[in-house]
This record gives sequence, C-alpha cells and structure tokens, in this order.
Amino acid sequence: MTDAAQDRLTAQMAFLMEADRLKSVVRATRLADGSRQENSAEHSWHAALFALTLAEHAPKDIDTGKVVAMLLLHDLVEIDAGDAPVFGDHDAAAIEAQEQAAATRLFGMLPGDQAAAFRALWDEFEANETAEARFAKSLDRFVPPNLNLANGGGSWVDYKVSFDTFEARVGAKIERGAPRLWSWLSPRAAAFFKKLL
Amino acid sequence: MTDAAQDRLTAQMAFLMEADRLKSVVRATRLADGSRQENSAEHSWHAALFALTLAEHAPKDIDTGKVVAMLLLHDLVEIDAGDAPVFGDHDAAAIEAQEQAAATRLFGMLPGDQAAAFRALWDEFEANETAEARFAKSLDRFVPPNLNLANGGGSWVDYKVSFDTFEARVGAKIERGAPRLWSWLSPRAAAFFKKLL
Repeated sequence: MTDAAQDRLTAQMAFLMEADRLKSVVRATRLADGSRQENSAEHSWHAALFALTLAEHAPKDIDTGKVVAMLLLHDLVEIDAGDAPVFGDHDAAAIEAQEQAAATRLFGMLPGDQAAAFRALWDEFEANETAEARFAKSLDRFVPPNLNLANGGGSWVDYKVSFDTFEARVGAKIERGAPRLWSWLSPRAAAFFKKLL
Repeated sequence: MTDAAQDRLTAQMAFLMEADRLKSVVRATRLADGSRQENSAEHSWHAALFALTLAEHAPKDIDTGKVVAMLLLHDLVEIDAGDAPVFGDHDAAAIEAQEQAAATRLFGMLPGDQAAAFRALWDEFEANETAEARFAKSLDRFVPPNLNLANGGGSWVDYKVSFDTFEARVGAKIERGAPRLWSWLSPRAAAFFKKLL
C-alpha cells in the first residue's frame, strides 16, 4: 500500500468511527414490536433495505444504488444536530444551519475528493429535486408510519397527531416522490386513525 | 397501481416489517464509546457504510452497489438463527442449517423473482468466492476489531482472546478479501494486545 493510500485509509477510518455515534441518536419512532425507540443508524439500515426492496415502485427508472447510498448517509448530520421529530415544533432555520455545519465537519474528515462526493449526495438528497432524491426522501418518510401501524400508534399517539396532520406533514411528502407507496399506505393509515378515535 | 403491483407491494411490506426484528438481535461487539452492545441492524448499516467508503481498497475493481446490497442483507437470517459471536464455541453445522432455513423463510416472504434475487445475493456472500463476496465478508470481519480498539478491548476482553487467536480467526479472513485493510489493522491490533497483556 502506498503512503498516499495509507493516509486516505486513515482519514476514512476516522470518519467511519465517528459515524458510529449515529447508533446513539434516538428517534421518536418505536420498533415494530413497540419495545423501545429506534436509533438513527438502524433506521438508516431499514430505509436502505426499503430502497433495495421497493425500487420497482419508483415513478421513474432510478439508480437504486444511488438511492441506497443517499439513505446510508442521510442522517449522519444528526450526530451533531440531533434528530428533529417530524411532529415536534422546531426552528427550521436553526436546524438547517446546524445540519449544514455538521455536514461540513463530518464529510470534511474524508479525503477531499470523497468528501466532495459524499457531500454532493447529501446535498442532492436535501434538495429533493432529482428522481433519486425524491424517492429516497419519500422512503425516509414512509418507514415510520409503517412502524406506527405495527406498534399500535407510536409517535402518532405520543404527539397526539390526527390523520389530517399526518396526511399534510407526511403523506404529501411520501406522495411527491412515491405516489404508489402513499396510495398503499393511505387507506391503511386512515382505517387505523378511525379506530384510534 | 395494478392489482399485481399492489400484491407485490403487500408481500414486500410484510418482509420489510419482519426485517425490523433484526434491530433486536444483540451482538457481542460494543459501540465505539463502549456504552452498550450493538445490534445486527445498526451493524449492517455500519458495514454498508464501510463498503461505500472503502471500496477503493478492494483488491480488484468491484461492483460497490452489490457489496452494499450484500451487507444490507447478510445478517437477516439472525432473526431466526441469532448471532453466533466469532470467539464463542458453536456447532457450525447446526448454525448453518438454522441460517439456511431462515433464508428460505425470510426471503420466501417476497415475490418469487425478488426472493430468488435476494437469496442469490445472500448465497453468493456466504459462498465467499466472487470478488464482491470476498470484500463484503472481509468488511464484515473488519468492523468489530476497530470498535474493540476504540472501546478498550470489548469482545476481545470478554472472550479473553489473544492476538494469535484474533489473527487466526479474524485477521486471516480480513486478509483474504481485503489485504490492504488487514495491513492497516494488523499493527494497530498488535500494539493494542501488547498493551493489554
């Protein structure tokens, strides 16, 4: 191994060990069995597995590998910025600034070319404009309601959410990048909320 | 959405919600900060992130997307078969039989074509012969010792492992598919074990 390759590997390893901290960022969503809240690392795995499994339901032909890569990286900024639950009240501008600073710090640990490539993937995800980003964002929003359906309401109950709020804050975002997934979920969620009342 | 697409999605969702149970399979390895043992879902995320970041260190040109997909799927069988710590004593044939049955049950929840594709990826990983499988297997073995180095010994201390045992049971497997990663890790692990004695 050349000295240059050795230096790259040492920088990459520092990034990968720092990434381990994502396993300690706790989310509002609980596991399907309701036993505990999930963390952002295992959520990232689950979301990437959703992408691998559900790619055929994307509205356009997409680069599945790119969607998976986006989902592996998408929450790393929470190591510094924390998780902002979707039904909580937040200062969106403050969170945005924290996440931008986190992306600069974390991806900046990598060799320059790779830092730029990973940052570009994260920026593309955040911008939510390309077909891959839109599908990835929709999957990120699609996983938690399915866990809530399985565990008896989860974060919907914790945050006293109505179906209308869920539809407006989450459903619309799922539908934008993955209309098929929303048309599958929507009647199931509606029936669940009806029973909940 | 056609009825056929709807049926596929319903089957895929049953698989993805069953996969959630991987978050409750606890491994011998502890987090980098030593605070708790990790689970197989967050480990799978971490291993996939290693693949995305370290692909350039594979001995041959590899299909990174395939390595990532293998690592997202590789531990799902532990939902039924549990995790067998690398330094524990096991009945290898019994574990193999349990994992084969688990693969049949879990991937069998998917539509037939996708069940076959995911099973083929898992079989390829297990067979450890293609360049992608060898690199993926090496990464799976490379992550835990780096966590042990960070957390003060972790599973090495728990299982009273010597450097020679580590080299024989883990190092040789890392080296087979990723000699560069072993040449990076080996002196660091050797120095750590020396201090431990």
